[in-house]
Amino acid sequence: MNKSGMLIVISGFSGVGKGTVVKKLVERYDYSLSVSATTRAPRPGETDGVDYHFKTVKEFQNLIDYNGFIEWAQYVENYYGTPKKFVEDELAKGNNVILEIEVQGAMHIKEQYPDAVLIFITAPNAQTLKERLEGRGTEDAKVISKRLKRAFEETDDMVQYDYLVVNDDIDVCVDDIHSVIQAESFKTSRNAEYTDNMKFELEVIRKTYN
Amino acid sequence: MNKSGMLIVISGFSGVGKGTVVKKLVERYDYSLSVSATTRAPRPGETDGVDYHFKTVKEFQNLIDYNGFIEWAQYVENYYGTPKKFVEDELAKGNNVILEIEVQGAMHIKEQYPDAVLIFITAPNAQTLKERLEGRGTEDAKVISKRLKRAFEETDDMVQYDYLVVNDDIDVCVDDIHSVIQAESFKTSRNAEYTDNMKFELEVIRKTYN
Repeated sequence: MNKSGMLIVISGFSGVGKGTVVKKLVERYDYSLSVSATTRAPRPGETDGVDYHFKTVKEFQNLIDYNGFIEWAQYVENYYGTPKKFVEDELAKGNNVILEIEVQGAMHIKEQYPDAVLIFITAPNAQTLKERLEGRGTEDAKVISKRLKRAFEETDDMVQYDYLVVNDDIDVCVDDIHSVIQAESFKTSRNAEYTDNMKFELEVIRKTYN
Repeated sequence: MNKSGMLIVISGFSGVGKGTVVKKLVERYDYSLSVSATTRAPRPGETDGVDYHFKTVKEFQNLIDYNGFIEWAQYVENYYGTPKKFVEDELAKGNNVILEIEVQGAMHIKEQYPDAVLIFITAPNAQTLKERLEGRGTEDAKVISKRLKRAFEETDDMVQYDYLVVNDDIDVCVDDIHSVIQAESFKTSRNAEYTDNMKFELEVIRKTYN
């Protein structure tokens, strides 16, 4: 059946736990995880090539000039981008590639790769999301208020995605995302080669049958 | 999330084992199976209301007149139809309804229920399908030749379906179909109520947050 790899874009509400979900997803199943490039400094415990590809501004701009990103953006003072070569090499090998990326990047990906599957991780309901944004109760009201404003804005983005998967129980969420990717691989539109072969071979068999 | 039931239409190549797949699917998971009505005589071992709703021609025609079917067709001398009331009652209750039906019926369903999910069960390849159509080698060449012709014609129908699921191992096939149905329930387009609620509730929480 479907031999070519699929591009899977995963976003979600801030604080919904998408980092952990993606980590478990690639641990449990056979997906290729794209690692973003950034100009921001590594934080303690972060490893180059695992958490990010850390680049200087000059290196990053050079990559932009040479069309080295499938999408890139600037946040605050730093650049973030998705390296093109890794993604295209993996897709060509027939591997499914996971991108964990924010919404603007996701929309750019969809324009360039209309077959990309866009998955948004959400909370069971608004109350649960609020509780997660409040964290352990150590943040001040101003920080939480800002997070709630951002979550409200993210509801507009949410409807741009193909699938909404709830992160209530993390293991269920991981398996649900895997189900979505599996199901996408069964789409008739992704299996033209299979249907063409089936038709051709059945015609041959039928004609030679005695 | 998605509260309304989905209509799942399952077809497949003759001889591909779709009857067994559907039987296992409704045994293993919580789906409502639609039972077709027919005017043909019960075969030994068939139970009214389980295998079919057996009807006289007069009863069947009366149901046609009263718009009692979501689709019906005549094959050879017999009528076959999908009773409307059962399907609509189950969908209203939020249950997912499985219809095992041939391709013409499936196309009629898709016209009336554009949200219906159409799944076609296929074989791993043409050679395997040929071997299944040959059966236990007791049929004569003419019968098998006729079956191969029909399979070839069915390849044109196959591409009308949303998903193609291979029946190689029956348990895998059943779980793959279940994955497809699960994934469909996560589609953003099926969850407008959830996204509207999320947006509304987050706005309320944000405004009242102090």
